[in-house]
Amino acid sequence: MTNVVTYRPAPGELRYTFGGHPAVLEIEPGSLLVTSTEDCYGGAVRTVDDLPSQVCLAFNPVTGPFHVVGAEPGDTLALHFAAITPARDWGVSATFPHFGALTGTRSTATLHPPLEERVWRYTIDTAADTVTFHARRSDHSIVMPLEPMLGTVGVAPAGGEARSTLVPDAHGGNLDTPEIHLGATVYLGVNVPGGLFALGDGHARQGQGEACGVAVETAMNVTVAVDLIKGVPTLWPRIETDYRIISIGAARPLEDAYRISQHDLVTWTAQLTGLEILDAYQVVSQAGRAAPGNVCDPLYTMHAALNKAVLAGANPYDGVHQRLRRIAEAQIKQSGKEHGN
Amino acid sequence: MTNVVTYRPAPGELRYTFGGHPAVLEIEPGSLLVTSTEDCYGGAVRTVDDLPSQVCLAFNPVTGPFHVVGAEPGDTLALHFAAITPARDWGVSATFPHFGALTGTRSTATLHPPLEERVWRYTIDTAADTVTFHARRSDHSIVMPLEPMLGTVGVAPAGGEARSTLVPDAHGGNLDTPEIHLGATVYLGVNVPGGLFALGDGHARQGQGEACGVAVETAMNVTVAVDLIKGVPTLWPRIETDYRIISIGAARPLEDAYRISQHDLVTWTAQLTGLEILDAYQVVSQAGRAAPGNVCDPLYTMHAALNKAVLAGANPYDGVHQRLRRIAEAQIKQSGKEHGN
Amino acid sequence: MTNVVTYRPAPGELRYTFGGHPAVLEIEPGSLLVTSTEDCYGGAVRTVDDLPSQVCLAFNPVTGPFHVVGAEPGDTLALHFAAITPARDWGVSATFPHFGALTGTRSTATLHPPLEERVWRYTIDTAADTVTFHARRSDHSIVMPLEPMLGTVGVAPAGGEARSTLVPDAHGGNLDTPEIHLGATVYLGVNVPGGLFALGDGHARQGQGEACGVAVETAMNVTVAVDLIKGVPTLWPRIETDYRIISIGAARPLEDAYRISQHDLVTWTAQLTGLEILDAYQVVSQAGRAAPGNVCDPLYTMHAALNKAVLAGANPYDGVHQRLRRIAEAQIKQSGKEHGN
Amino acid sequence: MTNVVTYRPAPGELRYTFGGHPAVLEIEPGSLLVTSTEDCYGGAVRTVDDLPSQVCLAFNPVTGPFHVVGAEPGDTLALHFAAITPARDWGVSATFPHFGALTGTRSTATLHPPLEERVWRYTIDTAADTVTFHARRSDHSIVMPLEPMLGTVGVAPAGGEARSTLVPDAHGGNLDTPEIHLGATVYLGVNVPGGLFALGDGHARQGQGEACGVAVETAMNVTVAVDLIKGVPTLWPRIETDYRIISIGAARPLEDAYRISQHDLVTWTAQLTGLEILDAYQVVSQAGRAAPGNVCDPLYTMHAALNKAVLAGANPYDGVHQRLRRIAEAQIKQSGKEHGN
Repeated sequence: MTNVVTYRPAPGELRYTFGGHPAVLEIEPGSLLVTSTEDCYGGAVRTVDDLPSQVCLAFNPVTGPFHVVGAEPGDTLALHFAAITPARDWGVSATFPHFGALTGTRSTATLHPPLEERVWRYTIDTAADTVTFHARRSDHSIVMPLEPMLGTVGVAPAGGEARSTLVPDAHGGNLDTPEIHLGATVYLGVNVPGGLFALGDGHARQGQGEACGVAVETAMNVTVAVDLIKGVPTLWPRIETDYRIISIGAARPLEDAYRISQHDLVTWTAQLTGLEILDAYQVVSQAGRAAPGNVCDPLYTMHAALNKAVLAGANPYDGVHQRLRRIAEAQIKQSGKEHGN
Repeated sequence: MTNVVTYRPAPGELRYTFGGHPAVLEIEPGSLLVTSTEDCYGGAVRTVDDLPSQVCLAFNPVTGPFHVVGAEPGDTLALHFAAITPARDWGVSATFPHFGALTGTRSTATLHPPLEERVWRYTIDTAADTVTFHARRSDHSIVMPLEPMLGTVGVAPAGGEARSTLVPDAHGGNLDTPEIHLGATVYLGVNVPGGLFALGDGHARQGQGEACGVAVETAMNVTVAVDLIKGVPTLWPRIETDYRIISIGAARPLEDAYRISQHDLVTWTAQLTGLEILDAYQVVSQAGRAAPGNVCDPLYTMHAALNKAVLAGANPYDGVHQRLRRIAEAQIKQSGKEHGN
Repeated sequence: MTNVVTYRPAPGELRYTFGGHPAVLEIEPGSLLVTSTEDCYGGAVRTVDDLPSQVCLAFNPVTGPFHVVGAEPGDTLALHFAAITPARDWGVSATFPHFGALTGTRSTATLHPPLEERVWRYTIDTAADTVTFHARRSDHSIVMPLEPMLGTVGVAPAGGEARSTLVPDAHGGNLDTPEIHLGATVYLGVNVPGGLFALGDGHARQGQGEACGVAVETAMNVTVAVDLIKGVPTLWPRIETDYRIISIGAARPLEDAYRISQHDLVTWTAQLTGLEILDAYQVVSQAGRAAPGNVCDPLYTMHAALNKAVLAGANPYDGVHQRLRRIAEAQIKQSGKEHGN
Repeated sequence: MTNVVTYRPAPGELRYTFGGHPAVLEIEPGSLLVTSTEDCYGGAVRTVDDLPSQVCLAFNPVTGPFHVVGAEPGDTLALHFAAITPARDWGVSATFPHFGALTGTRSTATLHPPLEERVWRYTIDTAADTVTFHARRSDHSIVMPLEPMLGTVGVAPAGGEARSTLVPDAHGGNLDTPEIHLGATVYLGVNVPGGLFALGDGHARQGQGEACGVAVETAMNVTVAVDLIKGVPTLWPRIETDYRIISIGAARPLEDAYRISQHDLVTWTAQLTGLEILDAYQVVSQAGRAAPGNVCDPLYTMHAALNKAVLAGANPYDGVHQRLRRIAEAQIKQSGKEHGN
């Protein structure tokens, strides 16, 4: 029987840094965590008239941190997402002053006044699996697929740092990478005892690069199967799905995020297949996929991915993804029985 | 009846710049051009013992340039690819000294000696639609899908410039973008009378970003349906397929290639749909796709793409893609009849 | 009479983050702080055989943090350096694996093995005002001017963050900017009550950009005249000397550090002179000076400077630089009398 | 007796590319060239009401190209500036739409409308050695030192390219580096027979980085002592003055311009002094100076400089700088005699 722990944060329990906070809960490896996340506005933007710069004091709250029993620096956490489900039938995007890819920003400093701050309220239909855009300056509506994901998943950083939840880096954090969806296992290196992972920033969907700086933000109900891989370090965030292995880099300029992710994928491929390193570089160069997560946060993210078919049966992290997948499925069945479905 | 022109370049007719050369042929809009391209080594690398730095004097020859009758600055060329077929049953990739994404380079200057220069010879099987990698330091072979594309498609640049065929920019050139494949229509703004387009650099396949700097390079047989859109300028290279519209940016750092491509896609979307500009920015931010073409050439490339479903029936460039597609299909049928198939 | 406070840190009192630590001392505005700093190796590298990667557990310790009485978010600290004097007659530089401007790094990830890790021990002669380089692979010695500076001066960051002392940003930190020398006043915006400033990373001298990643590192005796400017925020670190005003930007890519520093200098110039903003942009464009501090740290730094002659008598921050300069000079005289000089 | 050749271009003889044009004149090595350059607007902006985007068809004309007799690929041209003197008593700067460091641009594409296009007309007083700024939105005037320089000096590029005179690169071109002033010797590698150097873009003065994109532009009278160094290639533009050696890098992002220039200075220093390469890296890291030339052109420029005192008597390029300096001085004396001074 899988151990299931449930944690619903009170508003005052949400956190705005990775590091700097004690754990809200201890979790045994192999457990399922059932929890929920607020949106990046802390729920304060509910209509198109709620301008984020006026109604929000802080951005991007996370739920946690959670202490994984036995986790020590040099280990790896495996977080398998068994559910990421919108908790509301609406989501909100916005332009925000001097934030986003197509505007002057705090660091790409220009003398332009900010673009207009504008809010869009999307309709989310979980039955139809759709997200609907409503234009603000015309009557257009556009229906898009619902593709729920978590923008922010991370652990406490190394070196005694506490980092804003707006920042992605080697500890994870605000990766804004659509590949963190249902069925994905995220790997994060442990820097402090217990790992202290936290998560938030649910997106009903997001374009690659998150050009305007804000996705279709919404609260989420989240179930995570949690495991611990002892004695195996992970330098940069990684993801495994049924079909792909994925490395994530976070840096500026964007080519450095590309370099980090490709470098990690090359060394990972060499280790999984036994290919010599330049041979692995060659394989990734021809078979690899790449895309930006965000091109707006304090560090940009890109991922590098390889289809498992190329890996000829290699089994990353000794098959933890498959094990967590089974735990997640068993629990869903079990939970179905209990509820008489 | 479609006008079909055939041009097979003699070795001495290959060119290494966009601009600076007279046309090899005049082509009427609405014609089909049947031609062929050499690989990026000019065919000089045939075995794993042919090191490019030793056997090549120049890189990336193109076929052309072709003068499109009536083309003037301010117009747009439409090049629809009706065939891109490997002309050999092998292709070659390589690492090249101080070139590629995971090495010090001429501009990312470091004090490291170059990585080993190494050549890989791939098997191409057009019947099975596969490309096979053979490791150099072990016995691994890896079969990958054959996905033929042209790395280099461009016109003469503006301002009297002649640019190396290794460079991508607003005139197209070495875009190294896998989306330039069979069935795609490429749009390029005309800078000089006749446009003077040229093409080359066939890849049997390529990873996103072309990490090591070199794809699976091979000679190609190419058929292009050519059209001219009068009085409509195109600022950056664009692509249309049956399912997507795509904008390409070329720049360093990589985020600027992202910005250019997203900016072009936002303005294109606004123009096609009638959406106000920030509304279009919002749509692209949530529905847009993005990926790198190359992260190794003198300018990096990224593309921004939108599914046509989002555009609700909009018809880019007045439907030239569909017209050229029909020309290409009719010709293939016709050509089949003539050959008794 | 100026209030003089003295603080000599015990080894265990050195800190490796800005933020995350309580103050070691309270300081009244208008006081002189007499203190000392360890070198970036914590004093562990003493000979050319002490490789930093082997003898150091952490890098770049700072002395502090100091609580300035009355400092609140929205205020500005003014730190005038009345003395920065080498505490040893030797200093140490090094190459460090995958760190520096001319090597692959953690974020500019390449497949090269690291460059050789090598240590250089310099002779410091404070009487002759020289620093002497001794080559490691030949008998060359090169005498350079002694130009002592502090690489790291900062306050606790905003938003509950704790940042590694290796990082420069809006809170100051590892700016590695040679302009922080004797006679300079550094301005830092206050983010938390007391400001909590700290300092360290003395350099006997440093090239612009700190190309190899490490300066001539040495312990320093430091005297700082401290003041508080109430109700005036400072967004990015600024410096004032008798002749120049200087803005510092910290970012990657390097052009963003340039943009931040130029933007801050333009707005500062407009505010000091009454020039309209584009007129100020024009003045800075023709009269401004710029140089990199570091091109190796997690964020790069550049400064933008303007000769005060251009400002026609404008008096930044109501003349606090001149006041602190007088406090510093008075104390030096006083201290001279006491010692019978 | 020094050979003196004079060339005054007719308006139609000005050029807008490096490469792509035949020489206007042949020059023997050891000659003095007396010539003149138009400003970057081709002289079309004369008052604050002449907006460049409206009155200019092309930008940055150069005088030349000049064929140096005997120059072959693999050689180096040495151009010593014996005079750079404003030919007018006024100069013009401007903001230009989507050009400059503190604005969205063509490649740093944003959705902002352009900043206001505005022209400033400066007074140049060669007797007083001053340039005077006149504000456009107030009555401020600011007197600055006259520091004449040439923004654009280059040769025909390699590989059959023709590059816009707006672009700096390995062939020189639009370096916008204030170190190209009276008394400096510029070294450029030869790519084509004759070298085909050209020059223009005089600045009465310029801030480091040329933040707004435009300096105090004016026509110049220029005298150049020309020499040829056979069999010695030069990879990137270099400068020598009586006191310093300087390497220039041109690239984006700006850190790559820094890397190129530092790398070139390190290898140059190693070659001149006999220091092993990491020892030379160390010397440049502590003694080197660095600054941006432009942070606005298609490629950014930075220079890296070393005081000759550090080089212990090393004599770059076998003393050609001293020889050209003497030729220049002798001619000035001679010319004085001839005119009866």
